[in-house]
Amino acid sequence: MTSPGRAAVVGTGLIGGSIGLALRARGWHVTGTDRDEQRAARALELGALDTVGVDPSADVTFVATPVGAVVAEVRRALEETEGAVTDVGGVKGTIVRQLPDPRFVGGHPMAGSEQEGVDGADASLFEGATWVLTPTVDTDAAAFTRVRSLVTDLGAEVIALAPEQHDALVAVVSHVPHLTAATLMGLAAEGAEAHTALLRLAAGGFRDMTRVAAGHPGIWPDICEENREAIVAALDNLTAALGETRALVAGGDRDGLLRRLEAARSARVNLPARVIRPEDLAEMRVPVPDRPGVLAEVTTLASEVGVNIIDIEIAHSAEGGRGVLVLVVDAAQVDLVRDALVARGYRPSVQLLS
Amino acid sequence: MTSPGRAAVVGTGLIGGSIGLALRARGWHVTGTDRDEQRAARALELGALDTVGVDPSADVTFVATPVGAVVAEVRRALEETEGAVTDVGGVKGTIVRQLPDPRFVGGHPMAGSEQEGVDGADASLFEGATWVLTPTVDTDAAAFTRVRSLVTDLGAEVIALAPEQHDALVAVVSHVPHLTAATLMGLAAEGAEAHTALLRLAAGGFRDMTRVAAGHPGIWPDICEENREAIVAALDNLTAALGETRALVAGGDRDGLLRRLEAARSARVNLPARVIRPEDLAEMRVPVPDRPGVLAEVTTLASEVGVNIIDIEIAHSAEGGRGVLVLVVDAAQVDLVRDALVARGYRPSVQLLS
Repeated sequence: MTSPGRAAVVGTGLIGGSIGLALRARGWHVTGTDRDEQRAARALELGALDTVGVDPSADVTFVATPVGAVVAEVRRALEETEGAVTDVGGVKGTIVRQLPDPRFVGGHPMAGSEQEGVDGADASLFEGATWVLTPTVDTDAAAFTRVRSLVTDLGAEVIALAPEQHDALVAVVSHVPHLTAATLMGLAAEGAEAHTALLRLAAGGFRDMTRVAAGHPGIWPDICEENREAIVAALDNLTAALGETRALVAGGDRDGLLRRLEAARSARVNLPARVIRPEDLAEMRVPVPDRPGVLAEVTTLASEVGVNIIDIEIAHSAEGGRGVLVLVVDAAQVDLVRDALVARGYRPSVQLLS
Repeated sequence: MTSPGRAAVVGTGLIGGSIGLALRARGWHVTGTDRDEQRAARALELGALDTVGVDPSADVTFVATPVGAVVAEVRRALEETEGAVTDVGGVKGTIVRQLPDPRFVGGHPMAGSEQEGVDGADASLFEGATWVLTPTVDTDAAAFTRVRSLVTDLGAEVIALAPEQHDALVAVVSHVPHLTAATLMGLAAEGAEAHTALLRLAAGGFRDMTRVAAGHPGIWPDICEENREAIVAALDNLTAALGETRALVAGGDRDGLLRRLEAARSARVNLPARVIRPEDLAEMRVPVPDRPGVLAEVTTLASEVGVNIIDIEIAHSAEGGRGVLVLVVDAAQVDLVRDALVARGYRPSVQLLS
């Protein structure tokens, strides 16, 4: 556990409020603001904040505003504090490119709720959730490890990705599924005008599939604008794949259809649930040049080979110029990371922890 | 409540087993068979059947086999018993057209479960579920009301639709959503081959949307074959609608996107939950020529104007040739049905029940 310190939250909605509650439950002092003063007052009332305002000595500031306001608020927080600053925006590339500051680490907790606003905030919202961080060549290692360990303390599992990689992946598993749910719901509603019985036939599967379409749509114009390219590409892939499905149905290809559905079933059944902490751990020590880009490279490399970094630490050498990155991973997966690192010219050493 | 009698179930899987359990809980004697003798034995062991075999004196037989076997099994049941026969197939047009028998009533309970087989059977599976019946000009009124009142006793809300109408509607709210879920899951799995982190980003919304893809795909080749035309048409509508969504994203049309998502949200939020029994009821008496087609016309007409028939009874006149259809509906909706009936040349009379 990180020893508690001072944190700040900018934007006290569902996510910001949940961060405040979770931090305060762990002994942190949390200061916060919101563009809407009543919302900040409500966050204070609900116990998500210790005080409303700006805390110049915040160790970490979480910017939890809508995507469109993130860049300006991060810049302001970088000016007002000397600590690390992170955000929770659902799109990362356009945001991170505008903020090449060593103290900024882009972030995106993959958690949400059907609730809205600070009244739906929940201290346990991030437990077991995946929380993406997007370190770049500009990111300071100390800022990254600070944000990383704090987010881990909130119960989330951190995964480090390049910002553009994050955007391409969430287009596939979040943005396009959301747009598809809304489109399906819209089609059914159109048909229902002609036949009011239609929606009475909408059983559990349809309800599950369209549930996300009930969420507040206000955040989507920003997301679709900021992640336009990846969303359009993923929509095109979906349309092409639906065309293949259509061809199997229209052509009466029973075997082809069955194979396609079997593959989808197998993938769905194997969809990883929350990450389970392995029993056997391995520590890997990687001598690295003492520059920030190395941290981004090593952590995103681990994510790419599917390995979860359980703990990470940077030991700087006394003489400077070189350091040692200490990673703790599942012992069963350590070879994957080691091989990937060796392929990039690193010389890691591995020790099993019992 | 229908007074308990003798029923039969052909096919003792999840749905057949649940029907058996629900009927036996209401005092019915249930006989059943399954192509797979072990499955029938298991249904007996679990209490879904009183006995394995054929019951020539069954008042109602439920054929709960996969779609492809329904027609043959309904024909056999019509030969072996003198009671009404119904099925639970997810497609109705092709089945019902092949079975122009007065004692057969097509049916489709809109209920399911992530469980499979008789071990997942549940006596409460149909409580609050919509159960479609598809009477036609061939259907005998007594057979229809017998099946209808029994299904209502199981806790389901019956909706009468023409078979082709059922097929077009379920293509939109069930078949195409299912194929879309599988297609989305397939796309994500493909992406995951290139980047193992992808599936860790799949949060709640994606899980909800793809849940149905985890179901056993064995039933889908039959469904897609039997309902090919409606599914292909609905897939084409979905592809066109996704194209519209794509154009809004690619063109940066924030207002258009917001309007589209707002409309979907509003439709989703207003998706009817289980039907609520109204407090004030009205009884409508409709003099009708004493022939079966009238029943199908009146009941599907009520469904088309969105009115739920709470009870239905046929009073045949003593001299034959004429009868009176007695419908009980929500008093707030009675004018809708009356006007629709008057427009077709019927002369209904209405009495409010207090």
